Amino acid sequence: MRASSSLSVTTRRGLNEITAEVARKVAQSGVRAGLATLFIRHTSASLLIQENADPSVRRDLEAFLSRLVPDGDPLFTHVDEGDDDMSAHMKTALTRTSEQIPVVDGRLALGTWQGIYVWEHRLGSHRREVLVHVSGE
Amino acid sequence: MRASSSLSVTTRRGLNEITAEVARKVAQSGVRAGLATLFIRHTSASLLIQENADPSVRRDLEAFLSRLVPDGDPLFTHVDEGDDDMSAHMKTALTRTSEQIPVVDGRLALGTWQGIYVWEHRLGSHRREVLVHVSGE
Amino acid sequence: MRASSSLSVTTRRGLNEITAEVARKVAQSGVRAGLATLFIRHTSASLLIQENADPSVRRDLEAFLSRLVPDGDPLFTHVDEGDDDMSAHMKTALTRTSEQIPVVDGRLALGTWQGIYVWEHRLGSHRREVLVHVSGE
Repeated sequence: MRASSSLSVTTRRGLNEITAEVARKVAQSGVRAGLATLFIRHTSASLLIQENADPSVRRDLEAFLSRLVPDGDPLFTHVDEGDDDMSAHMKTALTRTSEQIPVVDGRLALGTWQGIYVWEHRLGSHRREVLVHVSGE
Repeated sequence: MRASSSLSVTTRRGLNEITAEVARKVAQSGVRAGLATLFIRHTSASLLIQENADPSVRRDLEAFLSRLVPDGDPLFTHVDEGDDDMSAHMKTALTRTSEQIPVVDGRLALGTWQGIYVWEHRLGSHRREVLVHVSGE
Repeated sequence: MRASSSLSVTTRRGLNEITAEVARKVAQSGVRAGLATLFIRHTSASLLIQENADPSVRRDLEAFLSRLVPDGDPLFTHVDEGDDDMSAHMKTALTRTSEQIPVVDGRLALGTWQGIYVWEHRLGSHRREVLVHVSGE
């Protein structure tokens, strides 16, 4: 059994939760035991599985990564699209483009505290596409 | 063919090897050609595939990452669970939650020097759960 | 349907594009709907999906990562194989060993600007092996 579909996510900079939307795709697939694969079709936004309990974790992740990879770093030569463009590519490189989550008993086998996020690295709001592929029995 | 199971790993901070345990799950699955998918159900410990020859590599990886993301960084506001909590989330974000390894001739197709690790980012010893999903023929 | 094969890539430090080679493997597999899984069998070179339009993005990614993880960092104790060895392991830990890309209509479902790269972290030229596993219908 195999179901492939696409999620469209309107983001703002930082972590944008998509756990419920992915869970819905898994439920619709009818797969009871297998794998869900996520793939983000962008190079300046990434995927992350992280704590979804305390919002301060998400704020701190964003603050830390933005200090580690600052907008407008003087090292960058690719600057035509703005100060947040090259930093966004680098932040994407340090996080994830694809992610796999086992499906057990028809549900995402996430840990108690795990949520799924699109990490938007550009300023402003963007439309991002995440492919969701579910396979199994 | 599809086999899904779970590994329980008792960790201490740093890289905890699980190559033999994962190899055993692959052997038990009976899959000769396919994929092994690993998924760690936590947000303050991660997965890594790295050199398993010289232990100094593992020590240096831990030392570098702990300097890059220091415990108790004054930037962090999520501090209730201790100085090692928010740094552990950030280190997990910079490494991996899922990993895929092809299975060839009934074995993990790791390179000569590759081992599989749970990277514990918190102080003290913890019980961590890694899902192992093997599919193929 | 399942096809497993191997790509041999001659690299130099930085991002070495393999999009066309991977696309060829997908076409040869005959899979129309499914997943392509990439796995690099090394611990000092990694995989990355990033922008393949402007070469300045690749140069900036390399420059930034090499400043973040400098060759010969005095912290490193694993130094026998040269100044670029331990930094290469660390850079690999911060990027990716496996990557998954959905296959839709017989093609890699990459975004408009996405290319697939082997990120060589050692100096000089190396032969790297990337396993390509395609499954689906």
